[in-house]
Parts: sequence; C-alpha cells; structure tokens
Amino acid sequence: MSATKKTKMSSDAITLAQKCINTIRVLSAETVQSAKSGHPGAPMGCSPMAHLLWSEVMKFSPENPKWASRDRFVLSNGHACALQYTMLHLTGYKVTIDDLKNFRQIDSITPGHPEVGVTEGVEVSTGPLGQGISNAVGLAIAETHLAAKFNKPDFPVVDNFTYVICGDGCLQEGVSGEASSLAGTMALGKLIVLYDDNDITIDGGTELSFTEDVTKRYEAYGWHTQKVGNGDSADLTSLREAVKAAQAVTDRPSIISVKTIIGFGAAKQGTHGVHGAPIGDDDIKKVKADFGLNPDATFEVPAEVASVYSNVKVKSKEAFATYSAMFAKYSAAYPTEAAELERTMAGKLPEGYAASLPRYTPADKTLATRQSSQQVLSKLVDLVPELIGGSADLTPSNLTKVEGNKLDYSKTSRDGKYIRFGVREHAMCSISNGICAYGGSVPFAATFLVFAGYCLGAMRLSALSHFRVLYVYTHDSIGLGEDGPTHQPIETLISLRSIPNMTVMRPADSNEVTGAYIQAMENAHGPTVFALSRQGCVNLPGSSPESVAFGAYTVQKEEADLDVVLVATGSEVQLCVAAAATLKAKGVSTRVVSFPCWSLFEQQSAEYKASVFPEGIPVLSVEAASTVGWSKYAHCSIGMTTFGASGKGPALMKHFGFSEDNVVAKAQILATTYKRAAPTLQRPF
Amino acid sequence: MSATKKTKMSSDAITLAQKCINTIRVLSAETVQSAKSGHPGAPMGCSPMAHLLWSEVMKFSPENPKWASRDRFVLSNGHACALQYTMLHLTGYKVTIDDLKNFRQIDSITPGHPEVGVTEGVEVSTGPLGQGISNAVGLAIAETHLAAKFNKPDFPVVDNFTYVICGDGCLQEGVSGEASSLAGTMALGKLIVLYDDNDITIDGGTELSFTEDVTKRYEAYGWHTQKVGNGDSADLTSLREAVKAAQAVTDRPSIISVKTIIGFGAAKQGTHGVHGAPIGDDDIKKVKADFGLNPDATFEVPAEVASVYSNVKVKSKEAFATYSAMFAKYSAAYPTEAAELERTMAGKLPEGYAASLPRYTPADKTLATRQSSQQVLSKLVDLVPELIGGSADLTPSNLTKVEGNKLDYSKTSRDGKYIRFGVREHAMCSISNGICAYGGSVPFAATFLVFAGYCLGAMRLSALSHFRVLYVYTHDSIGLGEDGPTHQPIETLISLRSIPNMTVMRPADSNEVTGAYIQAMENAHGPTVFALSRQGCVNLPGSSPESVAFGAYTVQKEEADLDVVLVATGSEVQLCVAAAATLKAKGVSTRVVSFPCWSLFEQQSAEYKASVFPEGIPVLSVEAASTVGWSKYAHCSIGMTTFGASGKGPALMKHFGFSEDNVVAKAQILATTYKRAAPTLQRPF
Ligand SMILES: [Ca+2]
Ligand SMILES: [Ca+2]
Repeated sequence: MSATKKTKMSSDAITLAQKCINTIRVLSAETVQSAKSGHPGAPMGCSPMAHLLWSEVMKFSPENPKWASRDRFVLSNGHACALQYTMLHLTGYKVTIDDLKNFRQIDSITPGHPEVGVTEGVEVSTGPLGQGISNAVGLAIAETHLAAKFNKPDFPVVDNFTYVICGDGCLQEGVSGEASSLAGTMALGKLIVLYDDNDITIDGGTELSFTEDVTKRYEAYGWHTQKVGNGDSADLTSLREAVKAAQAVTDRPSIISVKTIIGFGAAKQGTHGVHGAPIGDDDIKKVKADFGLNPDATFEVPAEVASVYSNVKVKSKEAFATYSAMFAKYSAAYPTEAAELERTMAGKLPEGYAASLPRYTPADKTLATRQSSQQVLSKLVDLVPELIGGSADLTPSNLTKVEGNKLDYSKTSRDGKYIRFGVREHAMCSISNGICAYGGSVPFAATFLVFAGYCLGAMRLSALSHFRVLYVYTHDSIGLGEDGPTHQPIETLISLRSIPNMTVMRPADSNEVTGAYIQAMENAHGPTVFALSRQGCVNLPGSSPESVAFGAYTVQKEEADLDVVLVATGSEVQLCVAAAATLKAKGVSTRVVSFPCWSLFEQQSAEYKASVFPEGIPVLSVEAASTVGWSKYAHCSIGMTTFGASGKGPALMKHFGFSEDNVVAKAQILATTYKRAAPTLQRPF
Repeated sequence: MSATKKTKMSSDAITLAQKCINTIRVLSAETVQSAKSGHPGAPMGCSPMAHLLWSEVMKFSPENPKWASRDRFVLSNGHACALQYTMLHLTGYKVTIDDLKNFRQIDSITPGHPEVGVTEGVEVSTGPLGQGISNAVGLAIAETHLAAKFNKPDFPVVDNFTYVICGDGCLQEGVSGEASSLAGTMALGKLIVLYDDNDITIDGGTELSFTEDVTKRYEAYGWHTQKVGNGDSADLTSLREAVKAAQAVTDRPSIISVKTIIGFGAAKQGTHGVHGAPIGDDDIKKVKADFGLNPDATFEVPAEVASVYSNVKVKSKEAFATYSAMFAKYSAAYPTEAAELERTMAGKLPEGYAASLPRYTPADKTLATRQSSQQVLSKLVDLVPELIGGSADLTPSNLTKVEGNKLDYSKTSRDGKYIRFGVREHAMCSISNGICAYGGSVPFAATFLVFAGYCLGAMRLSALSHFRVLYVYTHDSIGLGEDGPTHQPIETLISLRSIPNMTVMRPADSNEVTGAYIQAMENAHGPTVFALSRQGCVNLPGSSPESVAFGAYTVQKEEADLDVVLVATGSEVQLCVAAAATLKAKGVSTRVVSFPCWSLFEQQSAEYKASVFPEGIPVLSVEAASTVGWSKYAHCSIGMTTFGASGKGPALMKHFGFSEDNVVAKAQILATTYKRAAPTLQRPF
C-alpha cells in the first residue's frame, strides 16, 4: 500500500458520502489529538465502513440502547474507539462533542478503549486483541438461541445481525481462530465481520509476521468470504454489495476483507507511524483542507453531514416504534413468553429457584465437589432455563452435561442448551462473555482449573465488564493425581482471587457447592469461578449453603478455650476436621473454619471477621495450592511451594504435607509458640 | 470411522512391521493398564507412525540424548506418552520395562504426561494441548538460526528435522494456530507435523465442534500439506512416501494428516470411550490374540521385534559416530566456532559479560525502566550473542530492538536475532520455550505485562521445564495511563510471583534493571519476568545492580531510631524515598526498602531478612498492583483493589493513592499505632 496515494480531493467532486466519511475521519483524528494520545490510524482507515454501517445498514435506537433486538456492533480493534465514539455522537447516543474532547481522561465516558457499562452503545469491552470478534461469536450464538426460544410465526422478537470491525491484530490472535472455527461449525449466518485489511501492524508491514491467506483460512473454517479492494473509497457500492451478500448468506458466518489505507489522508498514511500517536494539529489542518473541510474549525460537523445523520435518527425511531408495536402484539398473544423474554433480558432470576437446590446431611454419600456440582446443575438447568453453557471438550470430566441440557446447541438445534466448545478454552470464555453481553442468558463454561492459564485474557474481561459468567473449573489441585504437574494448578487460585470483581469459590462439600451456585447466580454483576475437586469430600455436619455467603465461617466449633484455628478450603476442610479430633485428644482445643470465598469474607463486618478468627488465637491455613496470600489470614500455612507430581491423588496429598499427621504437628507448634497470644492479623487500615 | 472395522489378523499374514506395530500398541496399552489410569487410545492409533519415525526416519542417539544435531521429536498430544515411553524403551533410552510398569507413580521417570528433565529423550513437557506443536516451531527456528551461525561448507554441525505428532485437540487450540501461521511466514522447511486425524475428541466425534478443513487452513498458513488415508496399516508405504515428500519440501513446513482409528484393536476402538481410560486386562488379552501375540505374556517384546530395534540401535551408534568424526574435523578447522557451539549448547554464558553492563548514578537521566532495559539490551545482545528474541508486535513500546539485533530473523535471514512474533503472545512464549529446549540460544519475549494473561499456559511450562526464558514485559501498571483498565495489570504481578520457579522482577531504577538482567541470565534453570515501566524512575542513590540478588534491600537507611519501614517496588520506590523526607521532617524516622524480587528474598537467611525488616517495626508496602500477598511482608498496604481507569498516568497514580501525601499519612498512622512494637511477621515454620 503506497503512502503517497493521493487523498486530496477537488471540492466540486466531493460527494455527500465523501463529506460524511471525511468528517468522521477528522472528528476521530481531532478526538485523539485533544487527548494527545491514542490511535488515529484505524479510525481514519475504517471511516467508510463505519459510515455505511451506521447510516445504512445497522438497526439501533440511541434512545433505547438496550433494545433487545438491536443489531450488535463490536469494535474488535478497540484502540480505534475514537471512531466508535464519533459514530455514537453522530447517531445521537449520549456522547457529546465535549465527551470527544474529554477522550482518555479520568471519569470521561470516552476511555482509551471501549468499556461496556461506561459508554451507552458499547456492547463489549475491547482492546486486548482478538476478544471482540470472539465476543461477537457469543453474541451471535445468543441471538440464534433466544430466537429459537422466543420467536413465533410473524413475531421475530429476537432478530438481529452482529457486525464486527477488526484488524490484523485480532486475526493473528489465537483466540479469534478458536472462536472463528467454532462459528463455522455452528453456522452463525448472521455474524458479519469486516476485516480492516490495511497491511500494517505496530511493528511495520504485515509481511514481517503475517503472510497467511486470511480469507482462505476463513473458507477452511466454513465461512463465506469476500474481498473489497477499494475500502477507502466514498463510492460505497462494492462495500454495500458485499454487506448485502453477507446478509443474504444465512448458512455461514461472513467475513469481508476490506483493503484500506491506515490513517487515510494523514501525512504518514499507509505506515505504522500513524497507528498509535496523534497526527498533530498541523497535519489535521492539512487533512481538513485536502478533504474540502474548513481547516480552521475544530470538531465541526458540516450541516449536510448533520442532516444525513438526522435522517438516521428518524429512521432509528421508526424502526424502534415498529418493533415496539410488534412486541405489544406479541405480549398479548404470548404473555408468558413476553414476560420471560423481559425477565431474562433484565437479568432477573426466576423466583424461588434457590430453595429447590439440593441440600445434604452428613449421612449423604461422599462426593467429589465436581459431582455435587453435577447434582446442582441437574436442578439448576431446569429451574433457571436461561442457563446455557458447556465444556472445552472435557464434558465427561467436568460433569456439566445433565438431563436438562441434554440437547446440544448446534446449527440444527438452536434451542439446545449445551455448547460443545471444543478444545478452545480461551474462545469459550470470550464467547461466554458475548453470550452474557447479549442478555437473556446466563452462560457457564467448564474446563480444568489449571487451564485458566489459557483463558485469563477473557476471564479478566468478564470481571472488568461485570458479566455474570459461571466458570465451572474441576480438577482443582494435586488431588487430581496421575495427570501430573502440567495439569495440577498451584498458582491458579491466587491468580483468580487477585482479579478485582472475580468471585472464586472452593467449596468444601456438597452443601457449599449449592451455596456457591446460589451466590454466583445472585451476583448479577460479576463472574464466579468454582474450583471443584476430583477427590471425594465428606458432607460436613457444620456446613450449609447459607454459610457460603459469609465467605468464611466456623464449620466446627472448639469445645474448650480456643488454642488454634485451622482454616481450609475444599477437600482440605475434611482433613482439618479429622485433625481437630486428634488435636482435641492431645489437649489442643481447635476450631475449624471453612473458607470457600475470600472476596465474600472481605465484605463482612470487622465484628464478624473477628468472630471467625478471634484476636490472639493462632491460625493455620491448609490448602493444596500456593501459600501466597494466606498470610493475611493465617500465622502459618500448609500449602504448595513447588509444582506437583504425577502419582495417585492420595499419595500426592500425603507427599506434599496434606496429611492429618502434618496438620496436627504444625498446629501443635503454632499453639505452643503462641499460647493464645498470636500476633494480630488485623490492620489499622 | 467405524468401531467395528476388523482388526483381527490371520497370523501367517502378519508382517514384521505389523508385529512391531502391534507390539508397540500392546506395550502402550499394558503401560496404561498397569497404572490403572491413562490414555491408551492415541498410542494404539499412532503406533504405525511411531514405528516408522523411530525405526526408519529419525536420527538420534540414546547414549547421547543431548546430541546437538539429533532430530527433535515432540509428542504434542502428551497424554499419549505411554507410546513415547514405549518407543524410548525399544530404542535403548533409559526407560526399562519396570519404568513402564511404574507409569504415573510418584518418583517414576514415566509421569502421566511427558516432562523434560525427568525422562531422557523427552524434549519438551507436553500435555496442555497446543503447546508441543508450538514448541516445535521454536525448535525449528533454533535449528535454522544455529545452522546459519555455525555451519560451514562440508560441516553441517547443526542439521536436523523436527517431528511432531499431534491430535485434534492440539489443532483446535489457538496457540497452535498462532505458531503455525508464524511457521508459515518463517518458512520452516524442516518442521514436519504428523496429525493423528482420528475424528474423535473427548466429548465425542469431531463433528460436535471441529468441522473445519484442517489441511486447507494449513495451506492458508503457507504449509505443504498431505493426506494419508491408511494410517493404521502396517504397510507403511504411503506414510513413508509422505514423510519423504515432506523432507524434500524445504521451503515450507509440512503437515501430514494421517487418518487413524483411535484405540486400534481395542473393543471400543474408534470411540471416545478408548481415549482416557485403560481398556482392561481382558481386552488387552483379546487384542494380543487378535494381533497374533501371546495373550498370556505381559510386557513382552517378541524376539523379531527386539531384533528390528537392535538394528536401530546399531544404526544410531553409526550415525552418532559419523557426526562425532565430522565434528572433530570441524573443531580442528573452526576451533572458535566449535567452542562457541559447545559453550552455548551447554548453557554457559560468556565470561565477564556482566561487568560490561551499564551502571548508573543519581546524576544520570531519569528513565522509564523499559528505557533502561533498552540500554541493557543494547549491550547484552553484543556481549551474549546467543540472545535471540522479539516482541508480539509491540516493538516500539517494548523497546526490545537495538543496534545489535537490528537484523530480523526471517526466512531470508536466518542469522537475524530479532523475531517478529506478530500479535501472538501465547505462541511467542511457547516458541520461546522451544528455542530454549533446543539449546544454544537464550530466548527473550516481549509484550505488555497485562497480556501475561494471554500466555500463562506457556509461561508456567517455562517454569515447570526449568527453561531460561526472559520475559520483557513493559507497561507494568496503571502508570501506563490512557490505554485504560483493559491494558493495566492489577493481578498480574501476584499471578506470576505465585508460579513456582518463576522469578519476577520489578526494578526500581536503571541499576536494578541491570541487576535484574544479570540475575535472569545467571539463572540457567528457570524463567524470569521483568515488569518494566512506561513512567519515569529516578536513579536512586542507594541502588546497585548487586543488591538485586538479595531480592529486597535497604535502599535508603533511616537516620534515627527506626519508626516505620516503607517497602515498594518499581516506580513506587522513588515515591517512598520522597515520602521518607517528608516523614523525617515530621519526626518519623523512616527506612525505604526496595523489593525487586520476592523469590530471591525468600532464599535469603533469616538473619538477612530480619536485617531488612527489623522485628517490631511496622512496615507499609506501596505497589501499584493488587495488594494480595503483601501481608507476608507488611502490616499495611497501599495498592490496587479495583481495576484501573483511562487517564493520564500521573493523575491515575494520585487518584489511586500513590501520592506522597497518602504514603505519608498512612505511614504516620502505622507508626502511631504500633510505636516500634508492631506484630511480628515472622512465622514459626
Ligand atoms: Ca492492521
Ligand atoms: Ca483426536
């Protein structure tokens, strides 16, 4: 792509479309300029496709940004967000010129990358490359699923396309490959990706690292592919025709490779120099002059351009009114379905579901918590019909497929509630974010806990985006046994606990599994990880689903003046209960605290915290995971400081110190060392 | 694939190759059976290709398992390791029948997934899917690079193929797509992948989730592709021809899609039921009978089969002897190069390199630590010529390209030392593991710190595998500013610190950057992460490269009886130094501790630790990252408990409490609360 391609336009030849596109280019560049940081290149290159999408193609309602059946738009190359904010401004969303001028400042609604919840009209948070297009696969899955659930003859109440703009970076990322391959298998015919094929990445030309045939790869995935050569042109004919063709192909997702010049019009156009830095006031002036715009006006929307977008606003209002009228009739004809669609789109849960979840007594069979999870899921998928999810090809191990979700979601059964994600952990999480973003579903995603390391990129976005995604992660520790250290999480629990707004549960028995699911479902504004065992967990006399809400609680109280507290999670709680009996026989009065969730405990009052961990009493933590972090709650820790090993689970547990003998010995040392005068763990702030 | 395909063989028709293959199948199944856990399906399906590779194709020396020019073999579907152990046994590596019987037991050399360093002949640790094939891309890059560096006319001292067996799972994982795309761009002609195309994954048939055209996708990547239909057959003609054709194509990597039946011969062959569980003693007996082997003998290697592999051993000895003779002549003709090849393959560093790295004084310019890193790298790439690496398309931000590595590694410049990984963080790390595994190079890999979340799957394998990989991760905190919360690491530091054998450095100034690089280079048995800043860090009077070795040290001593210790990392150390002056003026005697590396500090003596953090003195930690974990060292912490935000770096720092005022205020509270009688942070064990 030549950097010297002429972009100067003789003013009498400038069409209205050209003027619109040039205005978008300039507003984006000015937005970046006023922040003195940001990315002008992609916005200036993608302005023609953005203008086409927002002025002609997409269905949306700025006054009703959460309209259930709106088209979803995802800017997968999130660094181009000056473009998205510009379009939201032009089309009448709550983004003012002042917001554009406030780009990338604290407390602005125009942050450096798009953030869902911060800016109306932004569907998902993008920026980390590859996420947006993968989210879009989830958005498209959700649409087909809810359409199958709710649409009736003459009442397409759920009916929209999902549009994506993405760049080279998104298509280099593995997560997008995983998601796109699955999108092919699932035949998501209403997913349309516009690929900003500008031959440039940050390091330089794509020949440095990205020489593959992208459209051929997408053909291999089973997609409908097209190429548009003149993506910079204001003659939008070929782009328009390509989008129409993509809409018409309903049995496959579509990708349109659009050749563009990055930073079109800028002095450094066509080079990586225009990717990630403002182009400068002088160049902006020159661009405006070249484009036939007033070089001395800033953030100006010419009257003709404003008029085009006024018409878009009128059209949007009409579209929404038509839908509302149709929905009113639907509500009359199908009141149950209409109420259910409204309930689920609002993120509300069915009344009373929690009371019907299983409860256990010590007489009940010892189960691995992955098995308890299977029992809870068996109820939950019936009680909460919006629950949809699956496993990254570990269904027989994760135990996530139950009677109520027996039907797979597939291209021939859109009403299925079980998703076969394939061996694609990262895409699974990213797609789950998309399903949640669409609304109307509560997604879950399952794999082995250790493979969180394959998908943290998407999981942290669940947390940042306040998405209710349930991560059902089994094989929680060295307790999984023979598969060995490549499969045994050590650092994973503390990694996940350290992510803000990520709730991490390691339940100790079946009742705690029930409680963990209730907490996860009730937390509408964040994801939850369940770390579940392959090893058996006896049902504890002192456990209950309700106790999980406190994060930590006394599961077995001491019988005399307290000498030592044993605090544990998961399968190690039962070990501590056994050790407590031995300690009692040795004259050491012991309390056992079960600690399924750190973040819930942190939300409790100081009084409650002190009631669980009394001042002056030494605390020993026992968890088959990294000891990092436990110093906040314990005076000493039994945990992992190395990787695990391949061997039988019980043998490994003993080998690494998770034995009654070791717990008893360490507890005795602690009790003796401190004699009810342990150093305070409380902090002045 | 039909599960009823006939596998019973009439005994007079059984060829010698068939007997070998059947023996391999049975030994693998028996190995799994004796562990009562493991994966018999893939070994039984892949036995023909394994027999071909080990008996005819590959160059290796069991007596010299580290032979520099051996062919590299990677079992990417690591769960099939019973097959690999069987082949290592047959070919004369140190794997006995007893080792096979001890499969998956603690302290065996035959763990549940292959582990480099545990079993001679295993090149990389596999099991987490997609890693092995991506490691192989690194192995192949290393081969071409070292060949360009060391080979001379008539002296191909570095000259080998890299062979991979992988399954559907590996090819579904995004990391393998990333690596394979790059392998195409890099035209790795001596990389040959055999894809075990058995139509089965754990969840069931591949039609559930994996319907793409794999060979077409690899064509799109620029690979040479072939299909072999009869991968189960002992008539190895078509497989042999395909491998020969792959060897002959030298301008592209090759993938051979080999149609097989999973669990060939077992009752449940061709189904996912044979993937992950022993087939049972009865079925093994029946398989042996069907295969014309003695059903009553276990772990038996028939004499004819043993004889075939005796010949392989003889051939191996000859190949190594030929190479040794050639290398002796090479040493005579090119003594410098020979010594350099031997030095680098042994992982030894050049003498005295560390003394030539830059040192700084407070008079030197304030730099971001990513800039100091650039200065250190500028020296290091010249001093340590085996350093090779690059960035995941963030070169201008990571500042990893310097004069001495100006030449890109590419298909036309194999001697280049800078790798353009593209926007492929996960593959970058996995490829770096492969480069390290080959020997002879010290790889580095660069991206933004937050994107560790995209590649932890590979990074934890660096640590588990004891690979010296340098992770140059810049933009270490909210200090990066406007890019916002999607790009600002919060949990990343503690995540990485919690991985066993992962050294994490957050240097406070330029001297500490130098010290961090020295520590990383000297640590031959593990990876190091450098968390480097975009924000400036003044050169501290008390810092030195040598101090980094202690993990934490007093960078500024108190001038009166100590009231409070401020401990910080990275750019927050300068903040604490400034706060200490104000505190002094307020009568609070303050020490500042710089804490660049937790794991190095943990290795120090109790005396040293107590000399840094004196008993009874309150400690305040200040780090622009999650506070999780700091309770081990500090009585209170200033840190992040939420995600960051988009804004100017200095404004964000202040907003989130990293201001002199806040540090002073918190230090005063601590000093007042505890008056030199803070609770002990020491632990009885
Ligand atoms: Ca690009
Ligand atoms: Ca397979």
